[in-house]
Amino acid sequence: MLKPHMQKEEKQITDSRILNEILKTGKYAHISLCDENVPYIITLSYGYDVSTNCLYFHTAKKGYKLEFIKNNPQACGTVVEDLGYQSGKCDHHYRSVVFWGEINIIKPMKEQKYAFDILLNHLDENPKKSKSRFLNTKSKYENTCILKFEIEEITGKGSE
Amino acid sequence: MLKPHMQKEEKQITDSRILNEILKTGKYAHISLCDENVPYIITLSYGYDVSTNCLYFHTAKKGYKLEFIKNNPQACGTVVEDLGYQSGKCDHHYRSVVFWGEINIIKPMKEQKYAFDILLNHLDENPKKSKSRFLNTKSKYENTCILKFEIEEITGKGSE
Repeated sequence: MLKPHMQKEEKQITDSRILNEILKTGKYAHISLCDENVPYIITLSYGYDVSTNCLYFHTAKKGYKLEFIKNNPQACGTVVEDLGYQSGKCDHHYRSVVFWGEINIIKPMKEQKYAFDILLNHLDENPKKSKSRFLNTKSKYENTCILKFEIEEITGKGSE
Repeated sequence: MLKPHMQKEEKQITDSRILNEILKTGKYAHISLCDENVPYIITLSYGYDVSTNCLYFHTAKKGYKLEFIKNNPQACGTVVEDLGYQSGKCDHHYRSVVFWGEINIIKPMKEQKYAFDILLNHLDENPKKSKSRFLNTKSKYENTCILKFEIEEITGKGSE
């Protein structure tokens, strides 16, 4: 896939530790999908799995986004660290990543459980307590849909 | 264009005053674009023009996003008010809008000036000062590109 040419090199972030840090710190991602050249955007809480370079999301089992994903799994996402608008300077400070890859629904129970572990460890201050509270029955897994975004390419930029 | 069916009705925001408020309060939008079924996402500061229901953006005169826009002006954007992750509750509070329409480059100087007014009035605490500082020569307009997103449809949802 053709990747964007960064117009302002001084803004580019290439250090993989910083790119990882942005993904580890973020709580939600915006994902661009398209079907028959019609674009769609979704915003979802995520868990970042550093070991496999994937993001996991949980969502309802039905919906518009699932139709898009089934028809075209190609996706482009972003996570933005908002460092605030700089009033009087015509500037907004931020750090962000943009990433490309495929997003797919995962179905095996074993992988769903793994994904929930990643999600709650990423999002929650007390994941152990939340796991025992929210994932205490098999039906909790059956009533939700897990999405996996496999990151193939990533770029970063920042202004601060 | 087919619009998403809201899965959880209690989350839906239909009051146009609230939808307007989210657009008026936000500082930047995430925009989904696509070209030949390849998705792309951009994040841009914006100015919201209530009278015409348009968003204006300024950007560099060259770049990947402009190629997408020239090839396919259909766009889908979102503005999210982040009200914080609710630790221990497996929930993130927010209010957001998703909107569809066309995004195009605007070229007439008169409309560019109008767009800059909207942008600085929206973003800046002291727009008059910023205008005299940043828009004091004709070349400031010539060296930038103005994008206009004409909103055709909008939906909102929230969890708080």
